[in-house]
Amino acid sequence: MNLPGTFTLGPGDGSARTGRLTTAHGEIETPVFMPVGTQGTVKSLCPDDLRTIGARIILGNTYHLYLRPGDELVAKMGGLHRFMAWDGPILTDSGGFQVFSLSGLRRITEEGVTFSSHIDGSKHLFSPEKVISIERNLGSDIMMVLDECVPYGADRAYTEKSLGLTTRWATRCRAAHAPLDRGQLLFGIVQGGFFKDLRAESARQLIDLAFEGYALGGLSVGESRAEMYDILYDATPLLPADKPRYLMGVGAPRDLLAGMAAGIDMFDCVLPTRNARNGTLFTFQGKVNIKRAEYREDDSPLEADCPCYACRTFSKAYLRHLYVARELLSYRLNTLHNLTFFSRFMAQARQAIREGRFEAFRTAMEAAYPETDA
Amino acid sequence: MNLPGTFTLGPGDGSARTGRLTTAHGEIETPVFMPVGTQGTVKSLCPDDLRTIGARIILGNTYHLYLRPGDELVAKMGGLHRFMAWDGPILTDSGGFQVFSLSGLRRITEEGVTFSSHIDGSKHLFSPEKVISIERNLGSDIMMVLDECVPYGADRAYTEKSLGLTTRWATRCRAAHAPLDRGQLLFGIVQGGFFKDLRAESARQLIDLAFEGYALGGLSVGESRAEMYDILYDATPLLPADKPRYLMGVGAPRDLLAGMAAGIDMFDCVLPTRNARNGTLFTFQGKVNIKRAEYREDDSPLEADCPCYACRTFSKAYLRHLYVARELLSYRLNTLHNLTFFSRFMAQARQAIREGRFEAFRTAMEAAYPETDA
Repeated sequence: MNLPGTFTLGPGDGSARTGRLTTAHGEIETPVFMPVGTQGTVKSLCPDDLRTIGARIILGNTYHLYLRPGDELVAKMGGLHRFMAWDGPILTDSGGFQVFSLSGLRRITEEGVTFSSHIDGSKHLFSPEKVISIERNLGSDIMMVLDECVPYGADRAYTEKSLGLTTRWATRCRAAHAPLDRGQLLFGIVQGGFFKDLRAESARQLIDLAFEGYALGGLSVGESRAEMYDILYDATPLLPADKPRYLMGVGAPRDLLAGMAAGIDMFDCVLPTRNARNGTLFTFQGKVNIKRAEYREDDSPLEADCPCYACRTFSKAYLRHLYVARELLSYRLNTLHNLTFFSRFMAQARQAIREGRFEAFRTAMEAAYPETDA
Repeated sequence: MNLPGTFTLGPGDGSARTGRLTTAHGEIETPVFMPVGTQGTVKSLCPDDLRTIGARIILGNTYHLYLRPGDELVAKMGGLHRFMAWDGPILTDSGGFQVFSLSGLRRITEEGVTFSSHIDGSKHLFSPEKVISIERNLGSDIMMVLDECVPYGADRAYTEKSLGLTTRWATRCRAAHAPLDRGQLLFGIVQGGFFKDLRAESARQLIDLAFEGYALGGLSVGESRAEMYDILYDATPLLPADKPRYLMGVGAPRDLLAGMAAGIDMFDCVLPTRNARNGTLFTFQGKVNIKRAEYREDDSPLEADCPCYACRTFSKAYLRHLYVARELLSYRLNTLHNLTFFSRFMAQARQAIREGRFEAFRTAMEAAYPETDA
């Protein structure tokens, strides 16, 4: 097997590309969608389910795992892979996004960000060094640097100042984790808000730090789709072509297509798992709201050719019943289906890119997931 | 295969007995514990999980399924087996217990019991004929007659009057469902509260109606363990020896042992599934409260020789983390374990009965589940 960090590009189609990234826990084909396993579990699923549905890499949340059960406990238990019995690759975020979106009182200084836990209000500091220490304790295959996720609507002055801080934090993260130490990759995160020149500046500064991959952060934070795509199409080509490129927190099918068209290799989002629990199911024909009355006596499977357990075993009428009755099994079956859809969707996209027909695939899928679709 | 309703006794030990009951969906070895699948699902599990953990028959709740999704819808979908994709035997209760424990305003008349739905307050009537119609729509393998479950503390006059009504309702149920029509068995339910002579009278009256099996109802309703056992040991021998005997709503390990010692063949209870969701786990060494701090860094499996997925795959530290974090996977793993324990417990009890060492098994297990244990 190749050394961790090896990234080999395969056939591309326009700016869209296929590739293969090696981690300490195996290779992943790109473009790839990573299901989110916030607290050491992809909600409602077991690790063997994840393998069955075709998930090849999952994301763990540093913020959540640090607070509960604690990264030191996870380290004592042999790391996150062993703790949750998932032997495939794991990417961990830096916790920065959750600090800004979930925690209470927070204060940003040069040193890092102090925040209070959303669980018990206790005070904590995330510094670049602390975040790297946590991600090393977790045993993450792909670690993300600490960054400040600039809120949507931030002005240029704020964004520029924040960008400087994010770069200094990235520098400290790189210093705290030598390239490929313990086989763990470290990715930088390009910020710069919705200012193209700041994005370019951020990218340049991070490239100087020689990360094993590069992410676009601070998107999907409340902006319009047009605004997101404007930055996406402009900033992605600024990321090194020979390293994996990761669009953080993006997962609507239409946005995955845009990301792939721009040359993005990795995505993550709570959309398929969270929507599953809200009864919104993804199919190649578009979204299905399973609680609708029209499915009450619908004896057909959700998606006839879907290989997931829910589609092979149950009718829409049964899935609707479970959802309406708020049965625990509803969350599980819906999550199995949605993540199976995302696996198949990405596999078909990779195939389309390899065969030089990505735009046709994109057009067909955009019809199922129209612009008005969140 | 034998005709549905065939009940063959195997080796016994004192009053404890083993046997084999044939239903339209297969044979079950007795004594058997039936997991409860209230709303067309054993909470958090798929039907393939049920097979894996050794469940051979499950219980469905007539009250719940009638209200949601509705027995007529279930019939249109091909019956409960097909709707929930479970091809093993299903026993359905009569709904009477839930009417008395869950629903709002209710009124008992000779005709039946009127009640308001706990979901939307709508008014409904359960008559003996209606309940049989619902259970036939569900496609139940073993149907229970409508009875009045007398509340704990009811005086002799009330209990005697209720007993007469229960017998008349049982007579109407029998009239509405000829023996083995469609292969569906019909069981009578002995009431009589905590008056032994009334229990005997109830048993005599029901035996005259020639049911395919007989249940003891109205126990585990708030009485002491001594009071329950007093009725259990006195009334069980009054039930026909050549028919299956079912102790309704009883499931604590100590009580299963008492029931088997008395000659009971079938049990059901929400205990293993509900306790799983409350973090109480059953093992051959006794109950484990998984949220206790002592398990925080416990890297060992819950029960070393347990074949369930949770024990084969995860540590107590991980199970505790999932429970404390209120993760959906916690409910699933805990339920898989508890039902696996109940399957193994009953299999070991059957083996002990066959080998003439049931009392030794009972004594050993009572040490793990002491008198003070609820």
